[in-house]
Amino acid sequence: MRMYDVIEKKREGFALTEAEINFLIEGYTKKMIPDYQMSALLMAIYFQGMSTDESAALTMAMVRSGHIVDLSSIKGIKVDKHSSGGVGDTTTIILAPLVASLGVSVAKMSGRGLGHTGGTLDKLEAINGFHVELSTEKFVELVNKNHLAVIGQSENLAPADKLLYSLRDVTATVNSIPLISSSIMSKKIASGADAIVLDVKTGAGAFMKTKEEAKNLAETMVAIGNTVGKKTVAILSSMEQPLGNAIGNALEVQEAINTLKGQGPKDLTELSLELASHMVVLAKKANTIKEAKERLHENLHNGKAIEKFQAFIKAQGGDDRVIHDPSKLPQAKYIIPIYAEKSGYISKLVADEIGKAAMMLGAGRQTKESVIDLAVGIILHKKLGEYVQKGDSLYTIYANTPSIDLVKKKMKQSIEVSNVQMADQLIIETIE
Amino acid sequence: MRMYDVIEKKREGFALTEAEINFLIEGYTKKMIPDYQMSALLMAIYFQGMSTDESAALTMAMVRSGHIVDLSSIKGIKVDKHSSGGVGDTTTIILAPLVASLGVSVAKMSGRGLGHTGGTLDKLEAINGFHVELSTEKFVELVNKNHLAVIGQSENLAPADKLLYSLRDVTATVNSIPLISSSIMSKKIASGADAIVLDVKTGAGAFMKTKEEAKNLAETMVAIGNTVGKKTVAILSSMEQPLGNAIGNALEVQEAINTLKGQGPKDLTELSLELASHMVVLAKKANTIKEAKERLHENLHNGKAIEKFQAFIKAQGGDDRVIHDPSKLPQAKYIIPIYAEKSGYISKLVADEIGKAAMMLGAGRQTKESVIDLAVGIILHKKLGEYVQKGDSLYTIYANTPSIDLVKKKMKQSIEVSNVQMADQLIIETIE
Repeated sequence: MRMYDVIEKKREGFALTEAEINFLIEGYTKKMIPDYQMSALLMAIYFQGMSTDESAALTMAMVRSGHIVDLSSIKGIKVDKHSSGGVGDTTTIILAPLVASLGVSVAKMSGRGLGHTGGTLDKLEAINGFHVELSTEKFVELVNKNHLAVIGQSENLAPADKLLYSLRDVTATVNSIPLISSSIMSKKIASGADAIVLDVKTGAGAFMKTKEEAKNLAETMVAIGNTVGKKTVAILSSMEQPLGNAIGNALEVQEAINTLKGQGPKDLTELSLELASHMVVLAKKANTIKEAKERLHENLHNGKAIEKFQAFIKAQGGDDRVIHDPSKLPQAKYIIPIYAEKSGYISKLVADEIGKAAMMLGAGRQTKESVIDLAVGIILHKKLGEYVQKGDSLYTIYANTPSIDLVKKKMKQSIEVSNVQMADQLIIETIE
Repeated sequence: MRMYDVIEKKREGFALTEAEINFLIEGYTKKMIPDYQMSALLMAIYFQGMSTDESAALTMAMVRSGHIVDLSSIKGIKVDKHSSGGVGDTTTIILAPLVASLGVSVAKMSGRGLGHTGGTLDKLEAINGFHVELSTEKFVELVNKNHLAVIGQSENLAPADKLLYSLRDVTATVNSIPLISSSIMSKKIASGADAIVLDVKTGAGAFMKTKEEAKNLAETMVAIGNTVGKKTVAILSSMEQPLGNAIGNALEVQEAINTLKGQGPKDLTELSLELASHMVVLAKKANTIKEAKERLHENLHNGKAIEKFQAFIKAQGGDDRVIHDPSKLPQAKYIIPIYAEKSGYISKLVADEIGKAAMMLGAGRQTKESVIDLAVGIILHKKLGEYVQKGDSLYTIYANTPSIDLVKKKMKQSIEVSNVQMADQLIIETIE
């Protein structure tokens, strides 16, 4: 087999065989196929696309390029969740104890990642003493005992995906649905998931700006999952505005705690319940979404969800007093409320711009080397479609520096108050 | 400027600016842009194409990447000719003395190249003593004196084109009209041509298999030439069957000599006169194609064309007795006539397959290192549409080995005799 022929075949729009895809992923991982041939192929894929069978083969070839986590010693069906990323999205921290409270085993590998705020690991580390450096034995033991544990992502998970992503990143070939889908699915499958729930976001704050693109991505990932025998469901949800009210690491942990006590923001609670109920059904702990949702809702209000979270924190060395005492979380030095300059409906609350404002405060990483300030962030007091009176508190800035003029300017550009009452449909569609 | 942005812009189908094209060619030549980014861009160009302005800018950026031959000390308008390559195409050896016999200055740089037979240089070196290692001074002196001289192509002509071509060759991005056009035009312009006549071939023996592709290539090159101020004309001609009767280096030189004496094959003579008359008009040595063609035809029959060829050979050290004595050319050991096995019209005479048969005899190079056998080749006795009687001589093999079974087999597959009388239109269209 010659790489040249594989490039030419794809360039002409033909589907590659599984053998060809294995050849190119193995060859590239072993550095036997040079970057310049791979980047030409990636651009050809950008233009010609890939069938479900091709995407599934690519996914599995990338899975096999590294370590595959073996979770067989954990009882039950292991369901993983992936979000395509958004602003203020703290659903993982809510979902994990929530579904565990119904007996679903959550063996979660999380990353740090770049973005407006830190990844799930960073957020959890806002809890004093919490650590994710567990041995595999301890990890499995905790999941079997509590139905929940979180560790850092293995370095050797789908290394072919890491190599390909680095190349795509510098050759303008990131934005290809089959390549994005295979990348996400390969990491989930290599992490040992039996079934997967995907939260695919669309709108200003999402990677996929249009509903059509997001739907295409969701359908492709669901098709890949089902082709390779990992039952997959995707929820298409809106990221026009930030999810919940908090943007910032400790602030989001506090919001997650509130939500697990049944006192969370409406949108965050709704999406968490939706995703969680699919996880519960996939894990066969409920027969219908309706049944799952009812029981999950119950656990948010009867204390079982927050108890599960508390046990989880304690088991991984964290200070579980945060459950009742928010002051145990990192605190910002300056808390600055910002007031509405006029009355009207919130008609724009641009998610990615607000995310950037949080990043300017230090809540997120711009490069892998950046140090995150876990205490800082923004809390929104009004969401899209809500009415605000001139002089009402619109949002609050949590900063560790008094110089926040640029942040305020960025926020001013991101929020529009007008006489138009917008509606934002949070959950758009379920794809399975 | 960032290469990433240039790739993304082209990927999205936008035209690159001259500044962007200069940036990428200079950056690539200086090895500041890596292969993997260039190959991604090349694939994006494959899919999105390039406008005339972009192709012209690319051509000139490649011209400027190396040495530009200065022919200003040669009087008159220097017209160059390029053929997109074919089987049995010895027009350059005919055209050069033919137009020189009307006072057109031909300062020709030729290459060796890969293919069914050698390049023009190889063919000329079939003449004992002929050499092309001339100083620039001697070269200019000879052109000013005889209106004709040939030297080898400078190594430093459009080096960016050489680099790009090597990359295209291994990334399945050769077959892109704007890239092919810019590549050809950059070498012609760097060679110092004031005006260019292109022979763009189409059909089984040509790089461009369909008339549409060939026309597109011709139009693109003419547009580039005219955009950068080098008047360019293209002739679209058929390469369904080999041009002329001879395929092989010395055999083609002999055929060229016959043609320059007015005794050449009809098709080779016709195409040579067509291309030559455009060269003469571009050099302003005649006012119309008709006038030019009449005067060129005259010179084929009054001895002026062959005299010019003789003077040219002598001036470059060659044994000019070949003009009258074919035995002075390299001779093959085995001359094997092959006879028709049935009667009928020649309905197929597949050019590229016949070219491969000649290559199997040793007439062409498979790799740069191959040594050519100048004596060997094939002479066809019947062309498309002609009637052959069973037992008539169909073609003759000139070999230096008696084992020619594979060559005969290849030839048998390439020639079809049937009751269908095909017509092959040699000159399809003029594009200017």
